[in-house]
Amino acid sequence: MSAIKPLLALSALLCLPSASIQAAQCSDQADTFMSASASAPETLGWMQGSPPAADRRVKLADGSFFKFPALRYSVAHMNEFLPTTLVKRRNTTPTSLEYALDEDIESLSFTPWGRQEAVDLQQALSETYTDGMLIMHKGKVIYERYFDGFKDYDRHLLMSMTKAVTGTLALDLIKRGKIDESQLISHYIPELKNSGFGDATVEQVLNMTTGIDFDENYADPKSEIWVFSAAGNPLPKPKGYQGPTGYYEYLPMVQKQGEHGKGFHYLTANTEVIGWLIARVTGMSVADYLEEKVWSKIGMERAALFQIDEYGTPFSGGGLNASLRDLARFGELIRNNGRFGDEQILHPDVVADISGGGHYPAFAEPLDDSMASWSFRSMWWVTGNENKAFMARGVHGQSLYIDPAQDLVIARFASHPVAANQANDCISLPLYEHIVDYFAKHER
Amino acid sequence: MSAIKPLLALSALLCLPSASIQAAQCSDQADTFMSASASAPETLGWMQGSPPAADRRVKLADGSFFKFPALRYSVAHMNEFLPTTLVKRRNTTPTSLEYALDEDIESLSFTPWGRQEAVDLQQALSETYTDGMLIMHKGKVIYERYFDGFKDYDRHLLMSMTKAVTGTLALDLIKRGKIDESQLISHYIPELKNSGFGDATVEQVLNMTTGIDFDENYADPKSEIWVFSAAGNPLPKPKGYQGPTGYYEYLPMVQKQGEHGKGFHYLTANTEVIGWLIARVTGMSVADYLEEKVWSKIGMERAALFQIDEYGTPFSGGGLNASLRDLARFGELIRNNGRFGDEQILHPDVVADISGGGHYPAFAEPLDDSMASWSFRSMWWVTGNENKAFMARGVHGQSLYIDPAQDLVIARFASHPVAANQANDCISLPLYEHIVDYFAKHER
Repeated sequence: MSAIKPLLALSALLCLPSASIQAAQCSDQADTFMSASASAPETLGWMQGSPPAADRRVKLADGSFFKFPALRYSVAHMNEFLPTTLVKRRNTTPTSLEYALDEDIESLSFTPWGRQEAVDLQQALSETYTDGMLIMHKGKVIYERYFDGFKDYDRHLLMSMTKAVTGTLALDLIKRGKIDESQLISHYIPELKNSGFGDATVEQVLNMTTGIDFDENYADPKSEIWVFSAAGNPLPKPKGYQGPTGYYEYLPMVQKQGEHGKGFHYLTANTEVIGWLIARVTGMSVADYLEEKVWSKIGMERAALFQIDEYGTPFSGGGLNASLRDLARFGELIRNNGRFGDEQILHPDVVADISGGGHYPAFAEPLDDSMASWSFRSMWWVTGNENKAFMARGVHGQSLYIDPAQDLVIARFASHPVAANQANDCISLPLYEHIVDYFAKHER
Repeated sequence: MSAIKPLLALSALLCLPSASIQAAQCSDQADTFMSASASAPETLGWMQGSPPAADRRVKLADGSFFKFPALRYSVAHMNEFLPTTLVKRRNTTPTSLEYALDEDIESLSFTPWGRQEAVDLQQALSETYTDGMLIMHKGKVIYERYFDGFKDYDRHLLMSMTKAVTGTLALDLIKRGKIDESQLISHYIPELKNSGFGDATVEQVLNMTTGIDFDENYADPKSEIWVFSAAGNPLPKPKGYQGPTGYYEYLPMVQKQGEHGKGFHYLTANTEVIGWLIARVTGMSVADYLEEKVWSKIGMERAALFQIDEYGTPFSGGGLNASLRDLARFGELIRNNGRFGDEQILHPDVVADISGGGHYPAFAEPLDDSMASWSFRSMWWVTGNENKAFMARGVHGQSLYIDPAQDLVIARFASHPVAANQANDCISLPLYEHIVDYFAKHER
């Protein structure tokens, strides 16, 4: 099983059930984990030295590369552990972002959920192990900070924020009439006909309302999470390996459990199916199509990197690595209703559909009353608030928060010791709300 | 041995003895191999489809990824097969190249060595399986063409041209007094004290005049080339593997054979030692130091990618992947005596030292009389001609030709079916000479 382990941490943690950590996590965790500054990769000296000392090596083979604190190094160096494919910007000169930095925002202060005392911005970012945060308001950069060694020219794993990118590409193809959302997914991908996805519609897969059997029991080596991880691992399979190779061999094996279209069940396998759908319809992998459709069209600053399986299939549900500014550029494209400058890159109906939300509550046990209105649409988390804000979210604190009413985009990378976002949400969600309030009050 | 194979093709072929293919290869090889256009990756459909059909997959595991014609795909997609580390440009806006395109150069025609009939430029580039060529004259781009699907925004494996990059960094450290070229290499790297390198000087390693035992007998699984390749392979070692892991475990095992300083012996292990020397002296890997010292300083257009071993050590002798324009930018830095704009990036004595050449003939059996004067200095191939031209060279046709007297830089990527450069040289070397002549006659 050892050759299978490396990707377990990566692909498995992206599938953590969203309510697995309860409100108790909203307490201050300073005593539980090494602090953000103490756990900075350069401070710990990961991979420094020629060769690095044995205890300073970040190791893929035993899976420790994705455990805190080594995780903080790995999220910015995924290409050093595994093969990747490039999503190129193609341009020779990136489009510069406009800046209107606002230092007053540093003095913002608010009370995290479940806490008594207020924290300021710096404290909030540090407690959530933020690697970088960039805020754009009305198209200009208001705030941009990097922490603990992460740089503007580094790429950070987007984790499940990747899903929103994949979902956006799919919804655009739907709006253009290239995909019929009401069709069965097996109409496009006959290989899925006899799988649990066989009688699911595109819409059900895209909104994760399928009823599929995906057991995340780490203790059982036969559970789906192990099979999925082993299949997606790009390294040559160990001798005697009998399981599926690649996402496209794995997905047809997924079984049905329950009914489709009866509720929201967050499972990454759905996004891999959507990635397959995009590839089948466009003739390009999600990585190549993302390059063709978006990355080469909106003045990106850095090539992005996409984790792949052994056959080069991108990990559509969690494998994109990009710079913080490019994540913000993607957010701006969405905030601008799919426009970049004078060019309508995405179909103009895509964004309104996302912000309109899905049919089912996203959280069975909301951490806060404000989360009761959240739903999930086309791989985005939709707040359902009066501003119609919505988010891309990834474990360990990744977030892209878009508030169309306030013309606001907040892009944040983090490497919180706890994977599940409930550990971040108690601080980060009220933080985003307070940033929205700040700009609502400081009319520019 | 199967988990060891993947890198064999890569690291082993870089070590091919330079005279292993004789002048007979100067004949037209059109009947031997599929043509350049017929073997274009897109034409052959490598890795197209979801999933790619079994016979369209380029496979790392069996080593076929580095065999023609799949090689033509792989040289531009190394990151899809193996982990890499990034050499970032860091800048937000690359420095644009100046253009003064000269279409007349297309009509250049010349007679390849050992042939009777003249070829034109297009034919010469096609017969040598050129993926891209860029010519700069007096700092301006005169010619820039890409072929068979390779694009300006792609990265191509530099193969042994990487050695010249590594050698340049080392020579710069020597000129700055950070390394004493007359010292024993084991003074800086005590781990090498009991190896074949133990009593070699830095100068002998840098100029590849060491006498070391490096057997390239592919048929013998115990030969050094297998041990070297297995050590450098970044993938987790197979169960029961007993050999060295990483270049730094392998190099101390290299044995002496013959005497140091008694002739030129082209062996990649020397460059790995120089990479180690740079890491030991600067505290940074060759990749990180290249980023710090060059890639972030001269307006590069794309991040480069460096192949690494399991501990993240860059493959200093052959693992750099860069865009054609960035290779040309590096060439321009050298042509400009180490200056970029107003900044002296390299010590001003570096380039004159390189162009002055080494002490021993580079070729025991020159293909052409003009190659009798060639020598090897600090990982560069020095023509010894009256213009003091010199080259970085890599198998399958990689070349960076610098003629300081004519203010000329020629950067070329290729994926010739034959690894050893003698197959290219019969056409490419007279081509470069004719390009030099062309600019000598067409004063601009």
